Amino acid sequence: MSAFDELKAHLRVTCALEQVQGRLGWDQETVMPRGAADQRAEEMAAMEAVLHARRTDPRLGDWLAAVQAPDEAGAALIRHARRDYDRHARVPADLAEEIARETSRAQGIWAEARAKDDVDAFLPVLDRVLGLKRQEAQAMANGGDPYDALLALYEPGMTGAEVAALFDRLRPQLLALREAVMGAARQPEPLRGHFDRDEQIRIAQMLAERFGYDRTRGRIDMAVHPFSSGSGADVRITTRVDEGDPFNCFYSTIHELGHAVYEQGVAPDHALTPLGQGASMGVHESQARFFENQLGRSRAFTGWLHGVMAETFGDPGCGGAEGFCATVNRVHPGFIRTEADELHYNLHIMLRFDLERALVAGDLAVDDLEGAWNERFERDFGMAVDRPANGFLQDVHWSVGLFGYFPTYTLGNLYAGCLWRAMQADLPDLEAALGQGDPMPAVRWLGERVHRHGALRSPRETIAHACGSEPGEAPLIDYLTVKFGAIYGF
Amino acid sequence: MSAFDELKAHLRVTCALEQVQGRLGWDQETVMPRGAADQRAEEMAAMEAVLHARRTDPRLGDWLAAVQAPDEAGAALIRHARRDYDRHARVPADLAEEIARETSRAQGIWAEARAKDDVDAFLPVLDRVLGLKRQEAQAMANGGDPYDALLALYEPGMTGAEVAALFDRLRPQLLALREAVMGAARQPEPLRGHFDRDEQIRIAQMLAERFGYDRTRGRIDMAVHPFSSGSGADVRITTRVDEGDPFNCFYSTIHELGHAVYEQGVAPDHALTPLGQGASMGVHESQARFFENQLGRSRAFTGWLHGVMAETFGDPGCGGAEGFCATVNRVHPGFIRTEADELHYNLHIMLRFDLERALVAGDLAVDDLEGAWNERFERDFGMAVDRPANGFLQDVHWSVGLFGYFPTYTLGNLYAGCLWRAMQADLPDLEAALGQGDPMPAVRWLGERVHRHGALRSPRETIAHACGSEPGEAPLIDYLTVKFGAIYGF
Repeated sequence: MSAFDELKAHLRVTCALEQVQGRLGWDQETVMPRGAADQRAEEMAAMEAVLHARRTDPRLGDWLAAVQAPDEAGAALIRHARRDYDRHARVPADLAEEIARETSRAQGIWAEARAKDDVDAFLPVLDRVLGLKRQEAQAMANGGDPYDALLALYEPGMTGAEVAALFDRLRPQLLALREAVMGAARQPEPLRGHFDRDEQIRIAQMLAERFGYDRTRGRIDMAVHPFSSGSGADVRITTRVDEGDPFNCFYSTIHELGHAVYEQGVAPDHALTPLGQGASMGVHESQARFFENQLGRSRAFTGWLHGVMAETFGDPGCGGAEGFCATVNRVHPGFIRTEADELHYNLHIMLRFDLERALVAGDLAVDDLEGAWNERFERDFGMAVDRPANGFLQDVHWSVGLFGYFPTYTLGNLYAGCLWRAMQADLPDLEAALGQGDPMPAVRWLGERVHRHGALRSPRETIAHACGSEPGEAPLIDYLTVKFGAIYGF
Repeated sequence: MSAFDELKAHLRVTCALEQVQGRLGWDQETVMPRGAADQRAEEMAAMEAVLHARRTDPRLGDWLAAVQAPDEAGAALIRHARRDYDRHARVPADLAEEIARETSRAQGIWAEARAKDDVDAFLPVLDRVLGLKRQEAQAMANGGDPYDALLALYEPGMTGAEVAALFDRLRPQLLALREAVMGAARQPEPLRGHFDRDEQIRIAQMLAERFGYDRTRGRIDMAVHPFSSGSGADVRITTRVDEGDPFNCFYSTIHELGHAVYEQGVAPDHALTPLGQGASMGVHESQARFFENQLGRSRAFTGWLHGVMAETFGDPGCGGAEGFCATVNRVHPGFIRTEADELHYNLHIMLRFDLERALVAGDLAVDDLEGAWNERFERDFGMAVDRPANGFLQDVHWSVGLFGYFPTYTLGNLYAGCLWRAMQADLPDLEAALGQGDPMPAVRWLGERVHRHGALRSPRETIAHACGSEPGEAPLIDYLTVKFGAIYGF
């Protein structure tokens, strides 16, 4: 066997084991008995021990030294393999195992702490996880910036400084837009009423079908925190139901469908290789946010959804389809990121980015996190956090060690803006299809331009290839200006 | 670290990975999307590759050469480790992987073939699985009898010849009992009626609670084939519902509860070691069959169940509690092993044992299996198999490579007979408790004598320790004679 074939065979098993690890994560958040948490932490640590040994196997170094790429995909595979090998080889095996064990355990503790607003129960765990992740980041950074090393796990090729500069450019434009919106004479009402759980789930399942999700290679379950998990032939999503707010279910479902349809759309040739998944979490979020916002919250699609809601629950009473679209897109400050409108969403991310960067740098102690969060939140959103679950306890990310992940949401919004602009020229009839509740022309366009390529290209190149031009923030701001200008009349 | 500590640490990770493998099996039979079957086969093969490498790690040989047992449990752990190392080291890695891949794939094909009575779809798969398992058996047997090597996976210390001799002794006694029963003047009626699915599930959940199953460390789901899976803090069971036959649900649930309560009852000290699970599949089946038959089908417990059924579904119309007990225990020839009465059950096993022994020996070809099955079934049961799903396609075992497993059911019945005799002396008030629907005195007795010890002792020693005497078949025959004599009046 050639060095390339040996390398690929080795990675195939590693990728299969990563799928197993992902399946355990799914199990933990959907069906695992609560008394199994400690044992599961040991199982996760064992899987991580196996994976770390495979990722740092010295033979990888030999193969990578001797390997020749047979083609473009082969070259991409080697790039991924080299980057992963270099990164993992710097992390001690016992640290990798300990992180897997602690983050598995921390997840349950976070969920309980959030349910009870129990800050004291959570802080020691967060402190341990942060300590371990800082060690890992320093090891991976190899003298460079630790935060950059973590960010690179989710968005290769991006640095914290670049994100900060981007956010500095975006922030005033978003604030100006928010001012225009909040000062507008026309202010939509929020949705009110009671929306039956089973009917919501039925509509969520219909949405899954309409957005092209293949249920024979996936499934939908309930979970506290909606997520998508798995690649290839087994890509599952979760959702949740709030009987007072059906948008929570519908739009978190559409969001996760964006992730899942992306994974399901990767060419089977790439399966069980490092190319057999999304190009980065930023590109992943671009698909999720595109599904959710550019498609799901468009005037045309909300028009169709208005009809579905009226038929199912009776007239939602927002003043017809036009008013319903305004209600869906209603801009208002709120505590919860996942429920935020498109303008406030990025402000939520900027807050988290600054705080997690300070945490990783050692400039902010875990004990001071709640205070720092609350102060910043009041400054940015003009309202005081009323309880920890509505503040720094709301997101699962930090408890499971996902420092460096949050910026990918805003990068996703930015990429989604670029894709939206590029799509306009190609799909003049998209609006008509969306008005019929049919997003498939857009899904197919994304499938062809983005999904099927998996991680063949870098995140930036993936978007540039799809759009025919380099990504930037202007299309996002244009999209938001046009959209909210139409709704709020400015 | 001492050789013992090194050995134990290594086994801890291996045991954690075996739990992961078990969890994947659970996932496959309960929630996996059907399109994921091929990918899952790769995942299973990857897990097996990892496990095989760990089980044959040359350091195990070094540790085992140097190790000193610190105590009784340590000595037992070393015994297990030595046996497993010797056995696995004889099996080539690629064969182990290929078996994992093929059996994962075969399971879905079997399920579909059974549903459609499609023999042609199943035979090639069965032939491949059998071929691989024969190779494995020959490798493990190391010149000995291949069937014995397979049997030893499930019942260490037992040989095919011993099983055959036991079955030769049991068979005439069972046939004599059956003749007495079938010739009796009093013949109970089968249960008739429609029994609501949700109510059946509610009763199954109540049974779980009454038999001491800890739902915080387990869960109950639906599956085609009821099973129990996992050890320690995550032991799950499945059940199924037939609205025409609630006994199917109730007694398969009680059966699986026997397995699950055993695993949950192993002392936490043994967790994630080779001692942290049942002593063998024979001992496992003894717990499952004891729960199901000696407890669940006793006159006292069926009296309580009669009340529950009458309250839930209305009078079951079998002629009161006495008649209901006779109906529950009604002896009649039938196609399906899992629905068989206590007399016919062992005849089902004997048939499977003889056929699988011939398959493994190469004396019976897969193409001739259906004919051999049908001929033997008609001879033993006095009726012709009407369709493959009621014949050789009914059980999952062979498709997933479980050759050598079937005898453990009858060994379980035999052990259960021994435990029942020993329990009588200790628990004079058991019948009164069972009459109140409370099997916990018996469950606690088993917990103390059997469950908490896990695999500390060999299967035979486990039963001998619990009963205070060596296991034999006489207690089983006595138990059956007394029980069916009372019901049928002979």
